[in-house]
Amino acid sequence: MNQRRVTLADIARGCKVSRATVSLVLRNSPLVAAETRKKVEAELKRQGYVYNRAAANLRQRTSSSVALVVNDLSNPFFAEFAAGVDEALGAAGFVTLLGSTGESTERQRKVLASLSEHAPAGIILSPAEHSDGNELLKIVGTHTPVLVFNRKLPHARWDFLALDNRRGARLATEHLLQLGHRRIAFFGGHADSSSCRERRQGHADAMQAAGIAVEPPWLIESAPTRLQAAAQTSALFVRDPAPTAAVCYNDAVALGLMLGLHARGRRPGHDFAVTGFDDIPEAAVCLPPLTTVATDPRGRGRQAAERILQRVRLPDTTPSELHAAAELVVRGSTCKPPHS
Amino acid sequence: MNQRRVTLADIARGCKVSRATVSLVLRNSPLVAAETRKKVEAELKRQGYVYNRAAANLRQRTSSSVALVVNDLSNPFFAEFAAGVDEALGAAGFVTLLGSTGESTERQRKVLASLSEHAPAGIILSPAEHSDGNELLKIVGTHTPVLVFNRKLPHARWDFLALDNRRGARLATEHLLQLGHRRIAFFGGHADSSSCRERRQGHADAMQAAGIAVEPPWLIESAPTRLQAAAQTSALFVRDPAPTAAVCYNDAVALGLMLGLHARGRRPGHDFAVTGFDDIPEAAVCLPPLTTVATDPRGRGRQAAERILQRVRLPDTTPSELHAAAELVVRGSTCKPPHS
Repeated sequence: MNQRRVTLADIARGCKVSRATVSLVLRNSPLVAAETRKKVEAELKRQGYVYNRAAANLRQRTSSSVALVVNDLSNPFFAEFAAGVDEALGAAGFVTLLGSTGESTERQRKVLASLSEHAPAGIILSPAEHSDGNELLKIVGTHTPVLVFNRKLPHARWDFLALDNRRGARLATEHLLQLGHRRIAFFGGHADSSSCRERRQGHADAMQAAGIAVEPPWLIESAPTRLQAAAQTSALFVRDPAPTAAVCYNDAVALGLMLGLHARGRRPGHDFAVTGFDDIPEAAVCLPPLTTVATDPRGRGRQAAERILQRVRLPDTTPSELHAAAELVVRGSTCKPPHS
Repeated sequence: MNQRRVTLADIARGCKVSRATVSLVLRNSPLVAAETRKKVEAELKRQGYVYNRAAANLRQRTSSSVALVVNDLSNPFFAEFAAGVDEALGAAGFVTLLGSTGESTERQRKVLASLSEHAPAGIILSPAEHSDGNELLKIVGTHTPVLVFNRKLPHARWDFLALDNRRGARLATEHLLQLGHRRIAFFGGHADSSSCRERRQGHADAMQAAGIAVEPPWLIESAPTRLQAAAQTSALFVRDPAPTAAVCYNDAVALGLMLGLHARGRRPGHDFAVTGFDDIPEAAVCLPPLTTVATDPRGRGRQAAERILQRVRLPDTTPSELHAAAELVVRGSTCKPPHS
């Protein structure tokens, strides 16, 4: 394997034309005669010349990459989101630079610094918990547009693509109220994250409208993962009478809670009602299939990519907030309360 | 938002030093006095200067990115693999360029061409089905090292990181034989993909060693996804006596088959035995938990990243094949045959 890259000079020498002619061929200039073009193209192929986009970008002071920074790629919600981003960027001729933070603000600093050195045209950022906009601006600089996804970033003056957390959780809670539930827990998530606060607010909205006071033991925290949620199941049943239903922070939490219920001899969808949030692919095929708030993470990924490309073209417009619609998908995990 | 990037000249002007001095500060040169360094650093911060890695790479003719091309990021196996790649590349100071092919050789051509223009130091490629090494070499060129993952690429002279497909499937089949099964199907995957061929071979090895002839109706194809596998469940039961166990192509197929069995009133782990392949995170927490061949996709991602970085440092050594070990993890989805 030859380590040296083939240069314009190599090609020029190989087919006995000037470097300027090779350069014109590469830029599809009409100034080159058809015969000459053919000869140069054959030589480019023969020597395996790869056009250097980074060099071209520098010459033109543009970039054809967009950076995507997510919390955790192995979470199906973010995997779907990333697939949507990559799909839309690819269709527009951009490539995706990838970074993940594992919810660590320190790793986020490093990842953003490293990605920024590659001069992406823009950055799509799903911030780690406890991130601060001012601090991130110092790393990214003022010249690269950023689209913040999912979590509101304090002190940021960037575009923001939000899920309609409050309305989504209200819809799920209203569905359970209509089935006859009165003791409805909000289960999982970290109370100090913006998305959890908003979803809890939606739950409170619906309960209040139904004239029911939310009791503090019905608000149960857990890390937003399946295993942590399963381990927290018993917290639902410490008081008698216990809740008969739970609005879960997200689908991973709901799947974990369903496992925890099974392990305690309960049957979600028969004697306890569970709702999720996200509608990850698994929600439709788990047992029982999960009633959940659909946010279409792949569609959100495409939307984020399209928004950042717009911003790259029109950098001087005012930052905006987009709120993606959420809708309830009713499946088998919700049921009437027992003895109703 | 100011669109123009801050240059060395802007910084030099701003703090009244030469451009060369600014450049020395950026390269951490010991030639700059502490006082001057402080002044320049303050000015870099004030103007929001972002070091341009692409420009530095061009000057030094090196690259600090590695491209990762997978079939489908929303498949948990590849999401875990990508998380592992990004983890190891990030730790080595490299960024990940991402592309996905959706198993289309045409999209793969475009994605590789576009990523190659960014001059990555190397490429980690999990090829789409029916890819050809000769054709891909023309796109990538001879100067960029490639590590092929998962599927053997005809006509390629690149490093190859393989899962031990044959041994893994043999282990799963032997486990079912030990439980007393005799009619053991191989379920799912496309018969013309190299990984499916190898896994079928492992199944055949174990059956042959036990003196059992594999009957053609026990070899059932399906796309390697949960939904397609669920839809194929009935193909297992067209003949009497039907198989009492299935070695599945991968975990997604096994999860789909378990859903299909439930839908037919069967209980995997009680009256039908199922094994998977991969050990995706879900395998441990589904119902029943899945007996499967663990390949540690996140560990494989880290291994692929480390291998390609080695190759970048030593490009002239002979391409090698690495076979990652596979081991059987026994959980609740395997049981003795009924009436045994």
